[in-house]
Amino acid sequence: MKRHPERGTYDRATIDVILDEALICHVGFVHDEHPYVIPTIHARDGDTLYLHGSPGSRMLRNLAQGIDLCVTATLLDGLVLARSVYHHSMNYRSVVVLGRAREVTDREEKLRAMERVVEHVVPGRWADARQPSEGELKGTTILAVSLDEASAKLRTGGPSDDEADLDLPVWAGVIPLALVPAAPAADNDERVPSYAERYRRPNGSATLDAE
Amino acid sequence: MKRHPERGTYDRATIDVILDEALICHVGFVHDEHPYVIPTIHARDGDTLYLHGSPGSRMLRNLAQGIDLCVTATLLDGLVLARSVYHHSMNYRSVVVLGRAREVTDREEKLRAMERVVEHVVPGRWADARQPSEGELKGTTILAVSLDEASAKLRTGGPSDDEADLDLPVWAGVIPLALVPAAPAADNDERVPSYAERYRRPNGSATLDAE
Repeated sequence: MKRHPERGTYDRATIDVILDEALICHVGFVHDEHPYVIPTIHARDGDTLYLHGSPGSRMLRNLAQGIDLCVTATLLDGLVLARSVYHHSMNYRSVVVLGRAREVTDREEKLRAMERVVEHVVPGRWADARQPSEGELKGTTILAVSLDEASAKLRTGGPSDDEADLDLPVWAGVIPLALVPAAPAADNDERVPSYAERYRRPNGSATLDAE
Repeated sequence: MKRHPERGTYDRATIDVILDEALICHVGFVHDEHPYVIPTIHARDGDTLYLHGSPGSRMLRNLAQGIDLCVTATLLDGLVLARSVYHHSMNYRSVVVLGRAREVTDREEKLRAMERVVEHVVPGRWADARQPSEGELKGTTILAVSLDEASAKLRTGGPSDDEADLDLPVWAGVIPLALVPAAPAADNDERVPSYAERYRRPNGSATLDAE
Protein backbone atom coordinates (compact mmCIF):
# COMPACT_ATOMS: atom_id res chain seq x y z
CA MET A 1 0.00 0.00 0.00
CA LYS A 2 2.91 2.38 0.62
CA ARG A 3 4.96 1.64 -2.47
CA HIS A 4 3.95 4.71 -4.46
CA PRO A 5 2.23 7.17 -2.15
CA GLU A 6 2.38 10.06 -4.64
CA ARG A 7 2.80 10.02 -8.39
CA GLY A 8 1.99 11.84 -11.58
CA THR A 9 0.79 10.24 -14.76
CA TYR A 10 -0.31 10.99 -18.30
CA ASP A 11 -2.33 7.77 -18.43
CA ARG A 12 -5.61 8.61 -20.13
CA ALA A 13 -7.60 5.86 -18.40
CA THR A 14 -6.62 7.33 -15.02
CA ILE A 15 -7.38 10.86 -16.23
CA ASP A 16 -10.80 9.83 -17.57
CA VAL A 17 -11.84 8.09 -14.34
CA ILE A 18 -11.04 11.22 -12.33
CA LEU A 19 -12.80 13.63 -14.72
CA ASP A 20 -15.84 11.35 -14.87
CA GLU A 21 -16.11 10.96 -11.09
CA ALA A 22 -15.57 14.64 -10.23
CA LEU A 23 -18.83 16.62 -10.19
CA ILE A 24 -17.18 20.00 -10.60
CA CYS A 25 -13.88 21.39 -11.77
CA HIS A 26 -12.05 24.67 -11.19
CA VAL A 27 -11.27 26.74 -14.27
CA GLY A 28 -8.35 29.17 -14.20
CA PHE A 29 -7.73 31.95 -16.68
CA VAL A 30 -5.96 35.29 -16.92
CA HIS A 31 -7.87 38.56 -17.25
CA ASP A 32 -6.06 41.92 -17.26
CA GLU A 33 -2.96 39.99 -16.13
CA HIS A 34 -4.75 38.72 -13.01
CA PRO A 35 -5.51 35.03 -12.37
CA TYR A 36 -9.08 33.91 -11.67
CA VAL A 37 -10.34 30.49 -10.57
CA ILE A 38 -14.04 29.68 -10.87
CA PRO A 39 -15.91 26.46 -10.00
CA THR A 40 -17.63 25.07 -13.07
CA ILE A 41 -19.66 22.05 -14.16
CA HIS A 42 -18.02 19.84 -16.77
CA ALA A 43 -18.48 16.58 -18.67
CA ARG A 44 -16.14 14.49 -20.76
CA ASP A 45 -17.02 13.10 -24.17
CA GLY A 46 -14.16 11.00 -25.51
CA ASP A 47 -11.18 13.31 -25.93
CA THR A 48 -13.15 16.47 -25.27
CA LEU A 49 -13.92 18.19 -22.00
CA TYR A 50 -17.05 20.34 -22.08
CA LEU A 51 -17.57 23.27 -19.72
CA HIS A 52 -21.06 24.52 -19.04
CA GLY A 53 -22.28 27.99 -18.16
CA SER A 54 -24.52 30.90 -18.92
CA PRO A 55 -23.75 33.52 -21.59
CA GLY A 56 -23.92 36.12 -18.83
CA SER A 57 -20.80 34.75 -17.18
CA ARG A 58 -17.75 36.98 -17.56
CA MET A 59 -15.55 33.91 -17.34
CA LEU A 60 -17.23 32.15 -20.23
CA ARG A 61 -17.19 35.27 -22.41
CA ASN A 62 -13.46 35.57 -21.79
CA LEU A 63 -12.77 31.90 -22.36
CA ALA A 64 -14.90 31.75 -25.50
CA GLN A 65 -12.36 34.06 -27.15
CA GLY A 66 -9.86 31.20 -27.07
CA ILE A 67 -7.54 32.40 -24.31
CA ASP A 68 -5.39 29.97 -22.32
CA LEU A 69 -7.09 28.12 -19.54
CA CYS A 70 -6.30 25.53 -16.92
CA VAL A 71 -9.02 23.15 -15.77
CA THR A 72 -8.35 21.27 -12.54
CA ALA A 73 -10.60 18.59 -11.03
CA THR A 74 -9.78 17.15 -7.62
CA LEU A 75 -11.22 14.23 -5.66
CA LEU A 76 -10.44 13.96 -1.97
CA ASP A 77 -10.16 10.30 -0.95
CA GLY A 78 -8.84 10.43 2.59
CA LEU A 79 -6.95 12.12 5.39
CA VAL A 80 -3.55 10.60 6.15
CA LEU A 81 -2.61 10.80 9.83
CA ALA A 82 1.09 10.12 10.36
CA ARG A 83 2.99 9.70 13.63
CA SER A 84 4.74 13.02 12.97
CA VAL A 85 3.02 16.31 12.17
CA TYR A 86 5.35 16.68 9.19
CA HIS A 87 4.12 13.59 7.35
CA HIS A 88 0.41 14.31 7.62
CA SER A 89 -1.09 14.32 4.15
CA MET A 90 -4.20 13.69 2.08
CA ASN A 91 -5.07 10.98 -0.39
CA TYR A 92 -6.43 12.60 -3.51
CA ARG A 93 -6.72 12.28 -7.26
CA SER A 94 -6.48 15.36 -9.46
CA VAL A 95 -6.38 16.15 -13.15
CA VAL A 96 -4.96 19.29 -14.74
CA VAL A 97 -5.97 20.13 -18.31
CA LEU A 98 -4.13 22.91 -20.15
CA GLY A 99 -5.46 24.33 -23.37
CA ARG A 100 -7.76 26.79 -25.02
CA ALA A 101 -11.51 26.65 -25.25
CA ARG A 102 -13.58 26.55 -28.40
CA GLU A 103 -17.18 27.76 -28.09
CA VAL A 104 -19.60 25.10 -29.29
CA THR A 105 -21.94 26.70 -31.82
CA ASP A 106 -23.11 23.65 -33.79
CA ARG A 107 -26.63 22.88 -32.59
CA GLU A 108 -26.22 19.11 -32.55
CA GLU A 109 -22.87 19.19 -30.74
CA LYS A 110 -24.27 21.64 -28.24
CA LEU A 111 -27.30 19.50 -27.51
CA ARG A 112 -25.13 16.41 -27.16
CA ALA A 113 -22.75 18.25 -24.81
CA MET A 114 -25.68 19.38 -22.66
CA GLU A 115 -26.85 15.77 -22.50
CA ARG A 116 -23.36 14.67 -21.47
CA VAL A 117 -23.31 17.27 -18.70
CA VAL A 118 -26.66 16.18 -17.24
CA GLU A 119 -25.84 12.47 -17.59
CA HIS A 120 -22.40 13.07 -16.05
CA VAL A 121 -24.00 14.51 -12.94
CA VAL A 122 -27.11 12.29 -12.70
CA PRO A 123 -26.96 9.26 -15.02
CA GLY A 124 -30.46 8.50 -16.32
CA ARG A 125 -31.84 12.01 -15.89
CA TRP A 126 -31.67 13.49 -19.40
CA ALA A 127 -34.56 11.55 -20.94
CA ASP A 128 -36.90 12.28 -18.02
CA ALA A 129 -36.66 16.07 -17.95
CA ARG A 130 -38.25 18.54 -20.36
CA GLN A 131 -35.88 18.98 -23.28
CA PRO A 132 -34.34 22.39 -24.02
CA SER A 133 -36.21 24.88 -26.19
CA GLU A 134 -34.37 26.77 -28.92
CA GLY A 135 -34.25 29.79 -26.61
CA GLU A 136 -32.75 27.72 -23.81
CA LEU A 137 -30.16 26.30 -26.19
CA LYS A 138 -29.17 29.87 -27.11
CA GLY A 139 -29.20 30.74 -23.42
CA THR A 140 -26.55 28.13 -22.65
CA THR A 141 -22.86 28.47 -23.35
CA ILE A 142 -20.81 25.33 -23.89
CA LEU A 143 -17.04 25.43 -24.27
CA ALA A 144 -14.96 22.53 -25.53
CA VAL A 145 -11.37 21.83 -24.45
CA SER A 146 -9.18 19.10 -25.88
CA LEU A 147 -7.68 16.57 -23.46
CA ASP A 148 -4.37 16.56 -25.39
CA GLU A 149 -2.56 18.32 -22.56
CA ALA A 150 -3.98 16.53 -19.53
CA SER A 151 -2.14 15.00 -16.61
CA ALA A 152 -3.15 13.36 -13.35
CA LYS A 153 -1.56 13.36 -9.93
CA LEU A 154 -2.60 11.17 -7.07
CA ARG A 155 -1.68 9.94 -3.63
CA THR A 156 -2.87 6.63 -2.24
CA GLY A 157 -2.07 4.47 0.76
CA GLY A 158 -1.10 4.96 4.38
CA PRO A 159 1.24 7.40 6.12
CA SER A 160 4.92 7.56 5.10
CA ASP A 161 6.50 8.04 8.52
CA ASP A 162 10.21 8.20 9.17
CA GLU A 163 11.72 4.87 10.25
CA ALA A 164 12.69 6.42 13.59
CA ASP A 165 9.07 7.34 14.33
CA LEU A 166 7.47 3.98 13.62
CA ASP A 167 7.38 2.88 17.27
CA LEU A 168 5.99 6.13 18.65
CA PRO A 169 2.79 5.53 20.65
CA VAL A 170 0.74 7.68 18.24
CA TRP A 171 -2.18 6.26 16.27
CA ALA A 172 -1.53 6.46 12.55
CA GLY A 173 -3.75 5.62 9.63
CA VAL A 174 -6.16 6.92 7.04
CA ILE A 175 -9.66 8.36 7.42
CA PRO A 176 -11.32 7.60 4.06
CA LEU A 177 -13.62 10.30 2.68
CA ALA A 178 -16.26 10.20 -0.01
CA LEU A 179 -18.99 12.48 -1.34
CA VAL A 180 -22.15 10.75 -0.15
CA PRO A 181 -25.80 11.56 -0.90
CA ALA A 182 -28.56 11.96 1.68
CA ALA A 183 -32.24 11.21 1.03
CA PRO A 184 -33.64 13.36 -1.81
CA ALA A 185 -35.76 16.38 -0.82
CA ALA A 186 -38.73 16.38 -3.19
CA ASP A 187 -40.19 19.53 -4.76
CA ASN A 188 -43.34 17.76 -5.98
CA ASP A 189 -45.34 14.57 -5.44
CA GLU A 190 -44.04 12.60 -8.44
CA ARG A 191 -42.53 9.20 -7.77
CA VAL A 192 -38.82 9.54 -6.90
CA PRO A 193 -36.79 7.98 -9.73
CA SER A 194 -34.24 5.34 -8.75
CA TYR A 195 -31.31 7.47 -10.00
CA ALA A 196 -32.26 10.05 -7.35
CA GLU A 197 -33.32 7.67 -4.60
CA ARG A 198 -30.19 5.53 -4.88
CA TYR A 199 -27.78 8.16 -6.14
CA ARG A 200 -24.12 7.16 -6.00
CA ARG A 201 -20.96 8.55 -7.50
CA PRO A 202 -18.70 6.08 -9.28
CA ASN A 203 -15.75 5.49 -6.96
CA GLY A 204 -12.49 5.02 -8.82
CA SER A 205 -10.46 5.19 -5.61
CA ALA A 206 -11.71 1.72 -4.70
CA THR A 207 -9.69 0.25 -7.56
CA LEU A 208 -6.48 2.17 -6.94
CA ASP A 209 -4.90 -0.14 -4.39
CA ALA A 210 -5.20 -3.06 -6.75
CA GLU A 211 -2.96 -1.42 -9.38
CA MET B 1 -36.51 27.89 0.41
CA LYS B 2 -36.56 29.34 -3.12
CA ARG B 3 -36.36 33.01 -2.27
CA HIS B 4 -32.68 33.51 -3.07
CA PRO B 5 -31.41 30.51 -5.01
CA GLU B 6 -28.12 32.17 -5.99
CA ARG B 7 -26.33 35.12 -4.49
CA GLY B 8 -22.95 36.68 -3.88
CA THR B 9 -21.80 38.23 -0.65
CA TYR B 10 -18.85 39.92 1.01
CA ASP B 11 -20.08 38.86 4.45
CA ARG B 12 -17.03 37.70 6.38
CA ALA B 13 -18.96 35.28 8.60
CA THR B 14 -20.21 33.45 5.51
CA ILE B 15 -16.73 33.50 3.97
CA ASP B 16 -15.13 32.15 7.15
CA VAL B 17 -17.59 29.25 7.47
CA ILE B 18 -16.87 28.15 3.90
CA LEU B 19 -13.08 28.41 4.22
CA ASP B 20 -13.16 26.57 7.54
CA GLU B 21 -15.34 23.74 6.25
CA ALA B 22 -13.47 23.21 2.96
CA LEU B 23 -10.58 20.75 3.30
CA ILE B 24 -8.77 21.95 0.20
CA CYS B 25 -8.71 24.98 -2.04
CA HIS B 26 -7.61 25.59 -5.63
CA VAL B 27 -4.86 28.16 -6.12
CA GLY B 28 -4.56 29.95 -9.44
CA PHE B 29 -1.56 31.93 -10.62
CA VAL B 30 0.07 33.10 -13.85
CA HIS B 31 3.42 31.72 -14.98
CA ASP B 32 4.93 32.74 -18.34
CA GLU B 33 1.53 34.26 -19.16
CA HIS B 34 -0.22 30.89 -18.70
CA PRO B 35 -2.78 30.19 -15.96
CA TYR B 36 -2.27 27.29 -13.54
CA VAL B 37 -4.66 25.90 -10.95
CA ILE B 38 -3.33 23.59 -8.24
CA PRO B 39 -5.18 21.91 -5.34
CA THR B 40 -3.69 22.99 -2.04
CA ILE B 41 -4.25 22.58 1.70
CA HIS B 42 -5.17 25.74 3.56
CA ALA B 43 -6.20 27.04 6.95
CA ARG B 44 -7.64 30.32 8.14
CA ASP B 45 -6.35 32.21 11.15
CA GLY B 46 -8.44 35.32 11.72
CA ASP B 47 -8.00 37.54 8.67
CA THR B 48 -5.20 35.45 7.18
CA LEU B 49 -5.42 32.46 4.89
CA TYR B 50 -2.40 30.15 5.08
CA LEU B 51 -1.39 27.89 2.21
CA HIS B 52 0.77 24.86 2.91
CA GLY B 53 3.29 23.11 0.70
CA SER B 54 6.80 21.86 0.17
CA PRO B 55 9.69 24.09 -0.90
CA GLY B 56 10.10 21.79 -3.91
CA SER B 57 6.77 22.92 -5.36
CA ARG B 58 7.10 25.16 -8.41
CA MET B 59 3.82 26.77 -7.51
CA LEU B 60 4.93 27.79 -4.05
CA ARG B 61 8.27 29.10 -5.31
CA ASN B 62 6.39 31.28 -7.79
CA LEU B 63 3.82 32.45 -5.30
CA ALA B 64 6.42 33.20 -2.63
CA GLN B 65 7.71 35.97 -4.90
CA GLY B 66 4.51 37.87 -4.24
CA ILE B 67 2.77 37.46 -7.59
CA ASP B 68 -1.01 37.75 -7.93
CA LEU B 69 -3.01 34.72 -6.96
CA CYS B 70 -6.61 33.60 -6.73
CA VAL B 71 -7.62 31.08 -4.09
CA THR B 72 -10.98 29.40 -4.59
CA ALA B 73 -12.62 26.97 -2.16
CA THR B 74 -15.85 25.23 -3.13
CA LEU B 75 -18.27 23.04 -1.17
CA LEU B 76 -20.82 21.00 -3.06
CA ASP B 77 -24.06 20.76 -1.07
CA GLY B 78 -26.49 19.15 -3.48
CA LEU B 79 -27.71 18.35 -6.96
CA VAL B 80 -30.78 20.30 -8.06
CA LEU B 81 -33.06 18.34 -10.39
CA ALA B 82 -35.56 20.60 -12.13
CA ARG B 83 -38.49 19.63 -14.33
CA SER B 84 -36.65 21.07 -17.34
CA VAL B 85 -33.10 20.18 -18.38
CA TYR B 86 -32.32 23.90 -18.55
CA HIS B 87 -32.93 24.60 -14.85
CA HIS B 88 -30.83 21.74 -13.50
CA SER B 89 -28.26 23.16 -11.12
CA MET B 90 -26.12 22.50 -8.07
CA ASN B 91 -26.27 23.85 -4.56
CA TYR B 92 -22.82 25.01 -3.55
CA ARG B 93 -20.90 27.49 -1.47
CA SER B 94 -17.66 28.97 -2.79
CA VAL B 95 -15.16 31.60 -1.73
CA VAL B 96 -12.77 33.48 -4.01
CA VAL B 97 -9.79 35.25 -2.44
CA LEU B 98 -7.71 37.62 -4.58
CA GLY B 99 -4.35 38.86 -3.39
CA ARG B 100 -0.66 38.24 -3.16
CA ALA B 101 1.12 35.79 -0.93
CA ARG B 102 3.71 36.60 1.69
CA GLU B 103 6.08 33.77 2.61
CA VAL B 104 6.01 33.13 6.35
CA THR B 105 9.59 33.15 7.63
CA ASP B 106 9.08 33.99 11.30
CA ARG B 107 9.54 30.72 13.21
CA GLU B 108 6.68 31.28 15.65
CA GLU B 109 4.19 32.33 12.98
CA LYS B 110 5.22 29.37 10.84
CA LEU B 111 4.74 26.89 13.67
CA ARG B 112 1.38 28.41 14.53
CA ALA B 113 0.29 28.29 10.89
CA MET B 114 1.28 24.61 10.69
CA GLU B 115 -0.77 23.94 13.80
CA ARG B 116 -3.74 25.75 12.23
CA VAL B 117 -3.43 23.62 9.11
CA VAL B 118 -3.40 20.33 11.03
CA GLU B 119 -6.20 21.44 13.37
CA HIS B 120 -8.21 22.70 10.40
CA VAL B 121 -8.13 19.25 8.82
CA VAL B 122 -8.36 17.09 11.97
CA PRO B 123 -9.29 19.07 15.09
CA GLY B 124 -7.48 17.60 18.10
CA ARG B 125 -4.63 16.05 16.14
CA TRP B 126 -1.77 18.55 16.59
CA ALA B 127 -0.94 17.80 20.22
CA ASP B 128 -0.91 14.02 19.66
CA ALA B 129 1.59 13.84 16.80
CA ARG B 130 5.36 14.25 17.01
CA GLN B 131 6.14 17.96 16.75
CA PRO B 132 8.19 19.28 13.82
CA SER B 133 11.98 19.31 14.04
CA GLU B 134 13.92 22.39 12.95
CA GLY B 135 14.72 20.60 9.69
CA GLU B 136 11.06 19.82 9.08
CA LEU B 137 10.14 23.44 9.78
CA LYS B 138 12.65 24.51 7.12
CA GLY B 139 11.29 21.80 4.84
CA THR B 140 7.81 23.31 4.93
CA THR B 141 6.68 26.37 3.01
CA ILE B 142 3.83 28.42 4.38
CA LEU B 143 2.34 31.32 2.46
CA ALA B 144 0.01 33.91 3.97
CA VAL B 145 -2.74 35.71 2.04
CA SER B 146 -4.92 38.47 3.46
CA LEU B 147 -8.69 38.00 3.35
CA ASP B 148 -9.20 41.68 2.44
CA GLU B 149 -10.36 40.80 -1.06
CA ALA B 150 -12.58 37.80 -0.40
CA SER B 151 -16.09 37.12 -1.62
CA ALA B 152 -18.52 34.24 -1.40
CA LYS B 153 -21.11 32.92 -3.79
CA LEU B 154 -23.70 30.32 -2.98
CA ARG B 155 -26.84 28.63 -4.16
CA THR B 156 -29.37 27.05 -1.82
CA GLY B 157 -32.86 25.67 -2.08
CA GLY B 158 -34.91 23.72 -4.59
CA PRO B 159 -35.25 23.94 -8.36
CA SER B 160 -36.32 27.22 -10.00
CA ASP B 161 -38.55 25.86 -12.75
CA ASP B 162 -40.54 27.98 -15.15
CA GLU B 163 -44.13 28.55 -14.06
CA ALA B 164 -45.31 26.72 -17.20
CA ASP B 165 -43.37 23.58 -16.24
CA LEU B 166 -44.60 23.23 -12.66
CA ASP B 167 -47.29 20.67 -13.47
CA LEU B 168 -45.11 18.45 -15.66
CA PRO B 169 -45.10 14.84 -14.43
CA VAL B 170 -41.34 14.94 -13.77
CA TRP B 171 -39.91 14.40 -10.30
CA ALA B 172 -38.07 17.50 -9.10
CA GLY B 173 -36.04 18.07 -5.99
CA VAL B 174 -32.60 18.14 -4.44
CA ILE B 175 -30.15 15.31 -3.76
CA PRO B 176 -28.10 16.59 -0.80
CA LEU B 177 -24.38 15.75 -0.86
CA ALA B 178 -21.76 15.80 1.87
CA LEU B 179 -18.17 14.67 2.31
CA VAL B 180 -18.54 11.75 4.70
CA PRO B 181 -15.86 9.65 6.43
CA ALA B 182 -15.68 5.87 6.47
CA ALA B 183 -14.14 3.81 9.29
CA PRO B 184 -10.44 4.69 9.81
CA ALA B 185 -7.87 2.27 8.35
CA ALA B 186 -5.20 1.88 11.02
CA ASP B 187 -1.47 1.72 10.29
CA ASN B 188 -0.55 0.53 13.80
CA ASP B 189 -2.14 -1.00 16.92
CA GLU B 190 -2.51 2.18 18.96
CA ARG B 191 -5.96 3.04 20.24
CA VAL B 192 -7.93 5.00 17.62
CA PRO B 193 -8.44 8.56 18.90
CA SER B 194 -12.01 9.84 18.96
CA TYR B 195 -11.22 12.60 16.43
CA ALA B 196 -10.41 9.85 13.91
CA GLU B 197 -13.07 7.34 14.93
CA ARG B 198 -15.88 9.91 14.90
CA TYR B 199 -14.48 12.27 12.30
CA ARG B 200 -16.99 14.82 10.98
CA ARG B 201 -16.66 18.01 8.98
CA PRO B 202 -18.50 21.04 10.31
CA ASN B 203 -21.55 21.51 8.07
CA GLY B 204 -22.40 25.14 7.48
CA SER B 205 -24.98 24.25 4.85
CA ALA B 206 -27.27 22.98 7.59
CA THR B 207 -27.69 26.53 8.86
CA LEU B 208 -28.22 28.19 5.47
CA ASP B 209 -31.95 27.65 5.15
CA ALA B 210 -32.53 29.33 8.49
CA GLU B 211 -31.06 32.63 7.29
